[in-house]
Amino acid sequence: MAAERLVVIGGDAAGMSAASQARRLKGPEELEIVAFERSGFTSYSACGIPYWVGGDVPEHDDLIARTPEEHQERGIDLRMRTEVTELDVAGRRVRSRDLASGAEEWTSYDKLVIATGARPVRPALPGIESPGVHGVHTIDDGRALLDSLEAAGRRRAVVVGGGYIGIEMAEALLGRGFEVTLLTRGAQPMHSLDPDMGDRLTGAMERSGIRVVTGAEVTEVLTGDSGRVRAVAAGSAEYAADVVVLGLGVTPGTDLARAAGLPLGASGGLLTDTSMRVRGHADIWAGGDCVEVLDLVSGRHRFIALGTHANKHGQIIGSNVAGGYGTFPGVVGTAVTKVCETEVARTGLTERQADEEGLQYVTATVESTNTAGYYPGAALMTVKMLAERRTGRLLGVQIVGGAGAAKRIDVAAVALTARMTVEQMTALDLAYAPPFSPVWDPVLVAARKAVSKVRAAG
Amino acid sequence: MAAERLVVIGGDAAGMSAASQARRLKGPEELEIVAFERSGFTSYSACGIPYWVGGDVPEHDDLIARTPEEHQERGIDLRMRTEVTELDVAGRRVRSRDLASGAEEWTSYDKLVIATGARPVRPALPGIESPGVHGVHTIDDGRALLDSLEAAGRRRAVVVGGGYIGIEMAEALLGRGFEVTLLTRGAQPMHSLDPDMGDRLTGAMERSGIRVVTGAEVTEVLTGDSGRVRAVAAGSAEYAADVVVLGLGVTPGTDLARAAGLPLGASGGLLTDTSMRVRGHADIWAGGDCVEVLDLVSGRHRFIALGTHANKHGQIIGSNVAGGYGTFPGVVGTAVTKVCETEVARTGLTERQADEEGLQYVTATVESTNTAGYYPGAALMTVKMLAERRTGRLLGVQIVGGAGAAKRIDVAAVALTARMTVEQMTALDLAYAPPFSPVWDPVLVAARKAVSKVRAAG
Repeated sequence: MAAERLVVIGGDAAGMSAASQARRLKGPEELEIVAFERSGFTSYSACGIPYWVGGDVPEHDDLIARTPEEHQERGIDLRMRTEVTELDVAGRRVRSRDLASGAEEWTSYDKLVIATGARPVRPALPGIESPGVHGVHTIDDGRALLDSLEAAGRRRAVVVGGGYIGIEMAEALLGRGFEVTLLTRGAQPMHSLDPDMGDRLTGAMERSGIRVVTGAEVTEVLTGDSGRVRAVAAGSAEYAADVVVLGLGVTPGTDLARAAGLPLGASGGLLTDTSMRVRGHADIWAGGDCVEVLDLVSGRHRFIALGTHANKHGQIIGSNVAGGYGTFPGVVGTAVTKVCETEVARTGLTERQADEEGLQYVTATVESTNTAGYYPGAALMTVKMLAERRTGRLLGVQIVGGAGAAKRIDVAAVALTARMTVEQMTALDLAYAPPFSPVWDPVLVAARKAVSKVRAAG
Repeated sequence: MAAERLVVIGGDAAGMSAASQARRLKGPEELEIVAFERSGFTSYSACGIPYWVGGDVPEHDDLIARTPEEHQERGIDLRMRTEVTELDVAGRRVRSRDLASGAEEWTSYDKLVIATGARPVRPALPGIESPGVHGVHTIDDGRALLDSLEAAGRRRAVVVGGGYIGIEMAEALLGRGFEVTLLTRGAQPMHSLDPDMGDRLTGAMERSGIRVVTGAEVTEVLTGDSGRVRAVAAGSAEYAADVVVLGLGVTPGTDLARAAGLPLGASGGLLTDTSMRVRGHADIWAGGDCVEVLDLVSGRHRFIALGTHANKHGQIIGSNVAGGYGTFPGVVGTAVTKVCETEVARTGLTERQADEEGLQYVTATVESTNTAGYYPGAALMTVKMLAERRTGRLLGVQIVGGAGAAKRIDVAAVALTARMTVEQMTALDLAYAPPFSPVWDPVLVAARKAVSKVRAAG
């Protein structure tokens, strides 16, 4: 019997995890694996780009978990700098183009994995294609930005966008000695936090030396005589800039899937079942930043681009493609980052999200320290907790604080997965010793306060 | 109607939390509260003593959450340096002695809280009462030890005992510039870890400059001409010592309860129901280091002396005494500490404990880093996981690693509470960003390995 052929579109976390896992389970005599990647890199940590740009990580090579050659040595026919331009579902084949030669060809498949990732948002503003304006989605982007930082006449940077990438890039540029202004459209950076918690972050960013401008809708990128960026305009205000970084978020990279008629959700991500198989298509799987995932707290499908989900998807897809069995039950919406000394984390639903779901809830916000208050270096942290009215079910947690604060969000992530009530959480046996926690862990303090609020709300 | 009288025996975490919570719920016109404490301190962090002795915490005052005066101002009739010497259950009264004057009196109660804490183990070895030999159970102990460190002719310390206090004191003495030898009877320090994980800790302690001697059964404390300690003998070996610290663990301080005929468990701790009421006694509650707690993983009652449990007990008792309602469902056995740069944590059952329960299990041990491997300062960490054979239920986790490793144990603590399987754990939505975790959190990597082991074990 001839080997089956698996085609993988996309050579980053989800795609190459799927390919690698499938290869571990089935040898080349049983399964041929062909993977297409349009860039020159595979299996890299896009999340690490800000730390490379900021100088914490010396080389882009450090971000690469596995090179194309390593994948090829493991028996994966990896076609680099080759873009899949068409997907013919009925004919079970993909058309690809070698980006160097322009040569095109069709490759047939028995099984297909779509791992086309996300696409950065880049609004069609005047001047946005000027030299000195950079996205930070790929390693090539990072390299171009680093060159641009060297070329900048003065050291004034404007970051457009207050999401994860925006605030991480603000820190990175500060690390490179730039004067940094962050422009965000909303009332605060990080709209994945509630405004009260976002304000705490804004304060911390400003204390770190980042100028934060809220309510700034960018209208134009202005250039100087050389054609290079000189400022960013937001309405009537102008912000001088020798370099501009765009961190406006991403959308699912599903043009190919959409053209092929595959099912997309409200956010434009592919819809799959829990085995990560595209709905209605027995031999097509999809994972990573091009799919929507089930939010276990709200029961709604969401688009959440995050490397850790992509890796899990890839593992599960690889198992299923190779005749194993795995499922991805969903997410609870956990995310974490830092800006200089300030850590930020969230999981579950914010007030805005809970409102959208028609949930009634109470909130409890507590200030505490990450270690015993008397322990040297004890850092302040704020925990905000949402619990459903009546049932007391945990709905979400947000944390802003000093070193050691943010990873505590994981306690809430597990509690959400287990659908615990805040009353149950007050009894959690969390690790205590003075260098690690106050005798009442801040998450427990928040849970206790939430319990009182649930009772009072009736 | 005359006020009811609540008597509290013991003025530390459990006792004073109970008194304070009861006072919050009921004013003096409804509830009179009398509390007896034999030392000169209330509500202090015994867990913080090593950090005060080591110099990280400047003053013992820093360890005191609430002073006697603060309690008294809140309407608690607190009798300091007054020891309860007899409990007359039938007569509903306690006999106390003022330690300064020797005066004795009986005080009747309507409701009683026993929070007599734990007692340090101090074997009756020759020489153990000599100057220069110190326990570290109370603030008075800590002060005596600090004086003794000043008085020591040379700077050689021997710590007897390899449990939490032993290893924390080894670090503290190193911090004071002492040459430190730690003697432990077992094959490794920290017998609350499995031997393979204990070995990792031993290695780390030795790299920090602590000499660890295992299999050392101390037989005598030897003194010099001045009468002060000069060495510790363990069989034929002698370890020169200018100061000796005993960290041999604690036993429940239940002499009073035992004499009064109250029910004690196998470890000598008081037995209570989940409302922390002493079994068979409607008006007597007990909490903190003098009770046994239900271990939710094994279903067995255990003696676990830990300030965080004592505080929870006190809160619950205070509510129940004052006509509210609260329960303490039990613990999963979480503990954490550090020695210099090395963090150690555990929760659930070790191999030895699982064997004792007749459980069959698999183990999975993984090495990872606490942050993305490429992130500056990424520290190594080892996670060991136990899962039940067939069911795959999580049974326990142990962690040894660098900064940021240990608090991850909380994920396992919540998963144990929720009785998750290791398969369920592989899908947990834990926080990921390069400064906080590899893209696969080490706990998830361990869970994945445990899943394979469960499958392979059949």
